[in-house]
Amino acid sequence: MHKIEHIGIAVNDLKASNALFEKLLGVPHYKIEEVASEGVRTSFFQSGPNKIELLETTREDGPIAKFLEKKGEGVHHIAFAVNDIRAEIERLTSEGFRVLNEIPKKGADNKLVAFLHPKGTNGVLIELCQEAPSEPELGGKGPIDL
Amino acid sequence: MHKIEHIGIAVNDLKASNALFEKLLGVPHYKIEEVASEGVRTSFFQSGPNKIELLETTREDGPIAKFLEKKGEGVHHIAFAVNDIRAEIERLTSEGFRVLNEIPKKGADNKLVAFLHPKGTNGVLIELCQEAPSEPELGGKGPIDL
Repeated sequence: MHKIEHIGIAVNDLKASNALFEKLLGVPHYKIEEVASEGVRTSFFQSGPNKIELLETTREDGPIAKFLEKKGEGVHHIAFAVNDIRAEIERLTSEGFRVLNEIPKKGADNKLVAFLHPKGTNGVLIELCQEAPSEPELGGKGPIDL
Repeated sequence: MHKIEHIGIAVNDLKASNALFEKLLGVPHYKIEEVASEGVRTSFFQSGPNKIELLETTREDGPIAKFLEKKGEGVHHIAFAVNDIRAEIERLTSEGFRVLNEIPKKGADNKLVAFLHPKGTNGVLIELCQEAPSEPELGGKGPIDL
C-alpha cells in the first residue's frame, strides 16, 4: 500500500455535492462514472496525489442506499493504492484480515479492487485498488459492491 | 488544498489498533503523541505522501470519547494539506462554509489546524492542516478539539 488512492464519500445528491466539493477543493470534478451493476453513480475530484470519490445510489436497494439509510452521508470507504492486488489479498488473508473479494473485481476509474470487512479494521471499510491492466482477469461480485 | 494530509480514525484501544494497522499498511507507526489539552492520544503511520492518524481518548468526556459513544470506531475526520491556512479559512468562509476555528490552533504533528463543521460538508468533518511555522500565532480552542 503506497498511498491513499481515494476516499469514497456517500452523498444523497451528487449534483449538489459536486458543487459543494468544487468550492471546497477549489477544482471541479474531472469525471462522472456510473457503475450500473453496482447501482452507483460516482464523481471524482483530484487533490494532488489523491482523489475524492463521491457516491450516489442509483438503486433503492443498492449498497450506498443501505449505507445512507443506516449511517447518513459521510465517509464510506478508504482506498489504498497497491501495485499487486493479488499479492496483497494473499498477504492480508494470511495476516488474518477478512478479505471480501478473493479475486479482485472491476471498480470505477479503471481499477481492480477488493474490500476488507470493516469489522476487522476498526470500523473502516478498506479498499485495495490497483490500476487495471488492459485485459484484466476479473472476479465476480463481492458482498460489498462498488 | 493540495493533498490529503491524513485521515483520522477513532479507535477504542490504540495499542491493539497500532498492531492491526502495522499489519494492514506493512509499516509500523512512526510516532505516538498525546495532546493533553484535547484529551487525545494519537499515533501516526506514513502511507506514501499521506498519513493515517489513530485517535484514542484519554478523557471520558473528550471529543473522541463522545464520537465513539455515538458512532463507534471509524473515520473521524479527513485532513487536507494547505499552504496558507488563514487564506483558506477566509476563502472557505466567504464560500459559505462554517469554519469552526476562525484562528487556526495547534494540532498534533506540528500543524496549524482548523475544522469545518460536518453539517456543511456531507457529514464529513474536514480539517485544514498547515505545517506550523517555528513561532506560530495560535488561536484558542474550537468547538471540535483535536
